[in-house]
Amino acid sequence: MALLLNCDLGESFGSWTMGMDAAVMAFIDQANIACGFHGGDPLVISNTLTLAKAQGVSVGAHPSYPDLVGFGRRSMNCSADEIKALISYQVAALDGMAASQGLELSYAKPHGALYNDMMAKDEVRHAIMDSMAAYHRPLRLMLQATPQADIHRAEASERGLELYFEAFADRCYDDDGRLLARSKVGAVHSREKILAQVQQLNEQGTITTVSGHTLTLQADTLCVHGDNLEGVQAVEAIRALLRV
Amino acid sequence: MALLLNCDLGESFGSWTMGMDAAVMAFIDQANIACGFHGGDPLVISNTLTLAKAQGVSVGAHPSYPDLVGFGRRSMNCSADEIKALISYQVAALDGMAASQGLELSYAKPHGALYNDMMAKDEVRHAIMDSMAAYHRPLRLMLQATPQADIHRAEASERGLELYFEAFADRCYDDDGRLLARSKVGAVHSREKILAQVQQLNEQGTITTVSGHTLTLQADTLCVHGDNLEGVQAVEAIRALLRV
Amino acid sequence: MALLLNCDLGESFGSWTMGMDAAVMAFIDQANIACGFHGGDPLVISNTLTLAKAQGVSVGAHPSYPDLVGFGRRSMNCSADEIKALISYQVAALDGMAASQGLELSYAKPHGALYNDMMAKDEVRHAIMDSMAAYHRPLRLMLQATPQADIHRAEASERGLELYFEAFADRCYDDDGRLLARSKVGAVHSREKILAQVQQLNEQGTITTVSGHTLTLQADTLCVHGDNLEGVQAVEAIRALLRV
Amino acid sequence: MALLLNCDLGESFGSWTMGMDAAVMAFIDQANIACGFHGGDPLVISNTLTLAKAQGVSVGAHPSYPDLVGFGRRSMNCSADEIKALISYQVAALDGMAASQGLELSYAKPHGALYNDMMAKDEVRHAIMDSMAAYHRPLRLMLQATPQADIHRAEASERGLELYFEAFADRCYDDDGRLLARSKVGAVHSREKILAQVQQLNEQGTITTVSGHTLTLQADTLCVHGDNLEGVQAVEAIRALLRV
Repeated sequence: MALLLNCDLGESFGSWTMGMDAAVMAFIDQANIACGFHGGDPLVISNTLTLAKAQGVSVGAHPSYPDLVGFGRRSMNCSADEIKALISYQVAALDGMAASQGLELSYAKPHGALYNDMMAKDEVRHAIMDSMAAYHRPLRLMLQATPQADIHRAEASERGLELYFEAFADRCYDDDGRLLARSKVGAVHSREKILAQVQQLNEQGTITTVSGHTLTLQADTLCVHGDNLEGVQAVEAIRALLRV
Repeated sequence: MALLLNCDLGESFGSWTMGMDAAVMAFIDQANIACGFHGGDPLVISNTLTLAKAQGVSVGAHPSYPDLVGFGRRSMNCSADEIKALISYQVAALDGMAASQGLELSYAKPHGALYNDMMAKDEVRHAIMDSMAAYHRPLRLMLQATPQADIHRAEASERGLELYFEAFADRCYDDDGRLLARSKVGAVHSREKILAQVQQLNEQGTITTVSGHTLTLQADTLCVHGDNLEGVQAVEAIRALLRV
Repeated sequence: MALLLNCDLGESFGSWTMGMDAAVMAFIDQANIACGFHGGDPLVISNTLTLAKAQGVSVGAHPSYPDLVGFGRRSMNCSADEIKALISYQVAALDGMAASQGLELSYAKPHGALYNDMMAKDEVRHAIMDSMAAYHRPLRLMLQATPQADIHRAEASERGLELYFEAFADRCYDDDGRLLARSKVGAVHSREKILAQVQQLNEQGTITTVSGHTLTLQADTLCVHGDNLEGVQAVEAIRALLRV
Repeated sequence: MALLLNCDLGESFGSWTMGMDAAVMAFIDQANIACGFHGGDPLVISNTLTLAKAQGVSVGAHPSYPDLVGFGRRSMNCSADEIKALISYQVAALDGMAASQGLELSYAKPHGALYNDMMAKDEVRHAIMDSMAAYHRPLRLMLQATPQADIHRAEASERGLELYFEAFADRCYDDDGRLLARSKVGAVHSREKILAQVQQLNEQGTITTVSGHTLTLQADTLCVHGDNLEGVQAVEAIRALLRV
């Protein structure tokens, strides 16, 4: 099973444009579409769905904490009930809008600080899983492939929830299978290293950590970026590599 | 076919409470639930759906212009595409959240200035109808019963859209079948006149206008209010009247 | 120097009303006025200032994290620059609006989670102090009277900033001079205990902790509440007590 | 007295960037700074003020209807009291933040739909003028130079308010001294025509209308744009022309 490519999209808002959505859409498999809480507005969502449909890209919801000015990047201390409701609202908005364009929403991937909190805090992850499992039709939850994947699989299985595990194409991993902090030297790969990491992951299911160790990482999908031209060109190169 | 009772609900927001939702829910048939753009937030929506389910009340979306501080009461000059997208987003959010509680969303009724613009401006009404008709499953649109009902029926029929026509229990009508402006003497009925108007509408399908004329008004549902104790008591009395 | 009474006010928003501002204004010395980020909107602020002026109450800004739906009660992970800017913006808005009504803004008291973070995290408190000290005219910062008051005084002094220390009328303190968590038995005082605590604080400058110890607490002002009738009546009783 | 150049700036929001502020700031005299209601956030405002100070540019507030997703471009049906309060709030926020950087706010220019409504509707313009006149220190109001200038001067004079009249460098005027609608052919000038219009306005105080007539237009300042490279280059050319 080939690795899929997922990308955050639809993050423009009103008169503000962000990301090269039209350009990157041609090279990806899964579009994580902002739902209006950190980016995206109803019209942007509608246009992004149209774009995804034209390119045959699978669509997912990209729900966030309600923090437009902070772009969803600041952790907010929400209760489990608040998290369940905000996931449910954003997923439902995307689901119904997608269906009205003849698309089927297939997953959700939390955004920014909500994603980080999902990986770091059991209660946040459980609230997200509870919300996804309570949704009226099955949708997958996308989270990070880590050495804790077995725990996450068990948590999901209890709830009858299916998962996508994602790895990062452009980020260096430490020996514990976590992303090296962006502040560290070598945290973000060059184009050459990106392609090497993708190839190794795709062919051997492993990555080489910052210290040179080889680590197994079971990933279904790779997170790529379409923020700027350099990012889009990297995605194009990854796409070419995976097609071979 | 007996008149239904519809009421705007779920208009609390965060820490701010509005309306006596739990009290009025016992007496109504249709709950118009705020979708987050003029009132309501994901948790309020979730709780309002739970309340509606417990009372066996049918649920509808109550979409608005994006104007929280103005409570959706200020007309905003939105394009047709903006209106289509904001209706679609809000309806979808309610639809998916309702379905996840085992409820089936059955209609939408625009709120405040969007409702007024729908009745006054063809291009707004057509954008709303287009959005409702493009939704992936059939939902009715609720609008005001007026002498223009035949035109509205024809517009809806072209689009394969079904309608609910609503009349107002507590408002005096002018001879053209429009609501008398609130600034006019006698615009808002006393309890006694409310009950008389409801009875006449229910039994004869007519209302008595401000000048004493009798006007035919084909209504499926009556708009009632649960803002305060007086309003709730009026709804209780209307319910008792219609049950006989 | 008699203890002042400060109260959070102006927390209505648009069509949502909160608090018995007009009632409690008669009994307090200092109005902490919401600035639009957790509550309050321009018109509410304007009306609250008018009310304060009519009662001769001193006015302060009550800035918050930008979290309307969470009422500023959820900690947000803001950078020091973000905190400085959001304090500066909110304080300036209140300052200019107050001056235009012939009032002089005299202090700021952070709200909710921002207040809690100010007391718990050095970097948040320093950012707030830096922002207040950089304001173009001197304004006091209000924070909690704790055993760390000397540290806080030194931090403020370095920046040429003056402080108000506040104690709580209705909350039980632990032996470390911190508020007992609301979840604990006896955390919130009865009316009788409120008055006893106020009297002791006013006459002896001490409080009796949950375990019965006597603790010195140097306070300039007492935080009181006008959310509901019971709260307002408590403030009226406190006012009567302090007047003697 | 030479024509000044004013430009809308500080319209970025959170993670979204808009405009080439740093580039255009070098060529203008007056920066109309967004106040957070259509663009701008506290940190963006702070950074824009810093930029203006570094270039010695005069600063004004650029208040808007509260419509972030619509960028303040959709007319909203606000009451006079709402308009007064929203102007006061936004102007005060900018005023205090500017003063804290050692700058003196000198004027306000309403943005987008609020600007258009100010020019088209007496009650909106009067509410804006009332708010500006009630501000605690004198600030000028910037509005469009039109054949109604004498009326506007009289309205301002009654209130003790001073005005800036602005003309547009890049827009064609009709014979009534109004801007030709953007939908019309020739509504937006080429670079060559921009410079000709600026030169004529600067030297003779007149413009040539769409039909070739010469119209007197008393303007204090010219509205220019820094949205993109082409706009910035036009401003640079205008600056060079006016310096001669």
